[in-house]
Amino acid sequence: MNIFRKTLASLALAGLGLAMTQSAVAETKTVTTESGKHAPSLQELAKPTDVKIQSNNATFAEKYARQYNSWKDTDKSTEIVPAIEVDPRMIVLWGGYAFSKEYNKPRGHFYAVTDVRNILRTGAPMDANSGPQPMACWTCKGPDVPRLIAEWGEEGYFNGKWAKGGAEVVNSIGCADCHDTTSKDFAEGKPALRIARPHVLRALDAIGKDFSGLDRTDQRAAVCANCHVEYYFDKNVTNNVVFPWFNGVDVDSIEKYYDDIEFKDWVHSMSKAPMLKAQHPDYETWSLGIHGKNGVTCIDCHMPKVQGADGKVYTDHKIGNPFDAFENTCANCHDQSKEKLRAIVDSRKHDIKEVMLKLEDQLVRAHFEAKTAWDAGATEAEMKDALQAIRHAQWRWDFSAAGHGGHMHAPDVLLKVIASGLDRAADARAKLAVILVKHGVQTPVKVPDISTAENAWKVMGIDIEKERADKEKFLKEIVPQWNKEAIDKGLIFEAPPAK
Amino acid sequence: MNIFRKTLASLALAGLGLAMTQSAVAETKTVTTESGKHAPSLQELAKPTDVKIQSNNATFAEKYARQYNSWKDTDKSTEIVPAIEVDPRMIVLWGGYAFSKEYNKPRGHFYAVTDVRNILRTGAPMDANSGPQPMACWTCKGPDVPRLIAEWGEEGYFNGKWAKGGAEVVNSIGCADCHDTTSKDFAEGKPALRIARPHVLRALDAIGKDFSGLDRTDQRAAVCANCHVEYYFDKNVTNNVVFPWFNGVDVDSIEKYYDDIEFKDWVHSMSKAPMLKAQHPDYETWSLGIHGKNGVTCIDCHMPKVQGADGKVYTDHKIGNPFDAFENTCANCHDQSKEKLRAIVDSRKHDIKEVMLKLEDQLVRAHFEAKTAWDAGATEAEMKDALQAIRHAQWRWDFSAAGHGGHMHAPDVLLKVIASGLDRAADARAKLAVILVKHGVQTPVKVPDISTAENAWKVMGIDIEKERADKEKFLKEIVPQWNKEAIDKGLIFEAPPAK
Repeated sequence: MNIFRKTLASLALAGLGLAMTQSAVAETKTVTTESGKHAPSLQELAKPTDVKIQSNNATFAEKYARQYNSWKDTDKSTEIVPAIEVDPRMIVLWGGYAFSKEYNKPRGHFYAVTDVRNILRTGAPMDANSGPQPMACWTCKGPDVPRLIAEWGEEGYFNGKWAKGGAEVVNSIGCADCHDTTSKDFAEGKPALRIARPHVLRALDAIGKDFSGLDRTDQRAAVCANCHVEYYFDKNVTNNVVFPWFNGVDVDSIEKYYDDIEFKDWVHSMSKAPMLKAQHPDYETWSLGIHGKNGVTCIDCHMPKVQGADGKVYTDHKIGNPFDAFENTCANCHDQSKEKLRAIVDSRKHDIKEVMLKLEDQLVRAHFEAKTAWDAGATEAEMKDALQAIRHAQWRWDFSAAGHGGHMHAPDVLLKVIASGLDRAADARAKLAVILVKHGVQTPVKVPDISTAENAWKVMGIDIEKERADKEKFLKEIVPQWNKEAIDKGLIFEAPPAK
Repeated sequence: MNIFRKTLASLALAGLGLAMTQSAVAETKTVTTESGKHAPSLQELAKPTDVKIQSNNATFAEKYARQYNSWKDTDKSTEIVPAIEVDPRMIVLWGGYAFSKEYNKPRGHFYAVTDVRNILRTGAPMDANSGPQPMACWTCKGPDVPRLIAEWGEEGYFNGKWAKGGAEVVNSIGCADCHDTTSKDFAEGKPALRIARPHVLRALDAIGKDFSGLDRTDQRAAVCANCHVEYYFDKNVTNNVVFPWFNGVDVDSIEKYYDDIEFKDWVHSMSKAPMLKAQHPDYETWSLGIHGKNGVTCIDCHMPKVQGADGKVYTDHKIGNPFDAFENTCANCHDQSKEKLRAIVDSRKHDIKEVMLKLEDQLVRAHFEAKTAWDAGATEAEMKDALQAIRHAQWRWDFSAAGHGGHMHAPDVLLKVIASGLDRAADARAKLAVILVKHGVQTPVKVPDISTAENAWKVMGIDIEKERADKEKFLKEIVPQWNKEAIDKGLIFEAPPAK
């Protein structure tokens, strides 16, 4: 019995067989939203099962050669673009949060494990019980994650530090993330789409999309929602991943949910605002935008059907820019030439970026103004509303900035999010100005030179050289052990690329 | 020789025949923009010509029955929606400007003359030399305007008070506004499109669109730009209409032009900010948006080819909502059902409105805060930057709010404009807060109850009952004289509708 194709109701039943003593009724404190839905309690997390997941991508290289090779072609997406060095305002915006150390534009699926090991955000844990991040940071990185959840249960998987999974999560985003690779259907060459992460099934249920009841089109989109979504780690339970969709998937509904449960990702190091970090709400933005409304899914544009050299048609797994396969993607709906359509997309990207940067500038000022207010003796009561406005404004900026391709999927959605962020930034700055002058501060508050990443790191008190040296040591001493162990266990045949 | 089909270069030459003593070189002060282009001086305005324009719409009723009757069907658009009573914030935003007295959503072309007579903005002039508005206020109201410009020249037309044209501009927007109704082509049943207002030809030239050189598609769109545009009255010359397109047609370029020439439509009665009133920049927004970029013009959606009862195909002149003729308009390009497309348009309209109202709220607060700052003794030097930010923010709000159908033509354009307006509103309010507290004002500044138009008029010092009584007297005593005189001269066969 494959529990992952079942709804949560049957998932709970399946769990009973393994843990009859544990009730499905929550016993730890759970915040219920206005919608009546809530994040799962510890007792509601999935238990270990006897489901077997073949997570070694390479085992499918021969039988599904066309799909595998096109997937492997994502290794051609090699470039690392250090976003916060291109735009050092982000180092200020994420002050006190690991994103201010390193944040790069995404590369191909092939590099997911490599990149999460190498990024400064995951630190340099020299043993399984140290390091800054929890296990949840692996959750999107590859098919070893659903394998581990099946083996260990959700609590067993999410509990502990990121380094605990170092020798286990070793295959990058691949076959068993989306397909039931051990099923009869898959063996017969059918897609056998499956969502193997229980928290994703729960989130889809929360928005009325029981996966097993979805049509093929919706299933194909939902599979990408395994990862291309906004999420948070529930510190009240076991740092497990939860999608905050209980009131809806738009920026307002998610913000309301976070406000209601008084959630914060971190406290900003300068402004002390209780911040939210948006991840990459691609599924949300897409579904609210013009492509989603018209039922054009991720797959239609990013995984078109193409013809191989042998004449056989297959699904291209080299997920990338649809313009690279224009005739098989955009041109299925759009009459314009590639050049014309590209110019339209470029101009929208440019326009969105322009107002996004205005919002960044307002936020940078607001953080410095808040810091200056604290330094001048402002009280928590005085600051509360201003900090809430900063939180909301930056949440809206990040929601628009953190996604991939939103300027293409849903430009109007992003622009509205940015506009509403600027509205909250106006609130924040008006309130802060009052507090500042009350405390005798000469305004405008001077924003130091943050025009380069080096300057911005210095301003924010980040010793980037130390971070890099520690990471270097970790990559040299620890990662080879992880690789060896994983190869010995047969999880992979060769180590992920070092870079 | 029909000068209106010629470019401005040949227009100047044509003028020479009538006014050899006047040089085409500007002699009055003209502000030249960075682009090197400038508004015309008094000497550069068009002189009277011997062009004859048949402005009486009814004279075409028989020969062009299908087109005429469809045009006349715009009389079915009867509803008067008082926009500022629906949303009284506007009464504050336009404080000190006639728009705060009355501003209604547009009705059909058939009512242009009726509506400009009835609106409180044109006041109650009891003779030709009184009243608040200049002749320019007639300029879009009908084909008598190009007739008068041809007869009187531009200076002769634009000079003087609005009431001067009362017995002359009596045909509502109709045939000779767009067609060369006395040409051989028109007599043969061809469209014979013409732009008969010299200031429109000049504006098109400024953006590189010499009308005579445009293809059919561009000409069709340009004809609508006779009126569906942003414009201003050049008080330095003779209150003549100028389109501020010298740097481009986007909101930033027009703002820059206005700033460079230090133009203001009025000074706000509360904030004392030097304000800009956006008119209806439909051509601009359309051209920058997705429909314009794809070469889909006003005509394609608002004037489709339809089949009459006699089976003959003609151009529908009942300009209105394209959804009313879905199969002949939207469905030419869009595959979706009418219901689906309508839902998409509605959701965009809703989204745009939502952030537009946020910007209105920020601006209302800013105007009250500025007034409070003045009352507390703020100086002009202190206020300058804040007032400039208010000017820019409200210009951007008005640019997005004053147009027709921008949420449909170019939703992303409007959203970006609104976002950038919110950015400037943030600047304004941050600056104002500093000034307020410096002058010892307890903040936040209280915004009085403006939830109804009655309240808002009272707050803004408008005696709406007096305005209405004066208008009533004017409509009873003066307008019938205008109608009689126009009928006696054969300009119309019957008076425009009273309501």
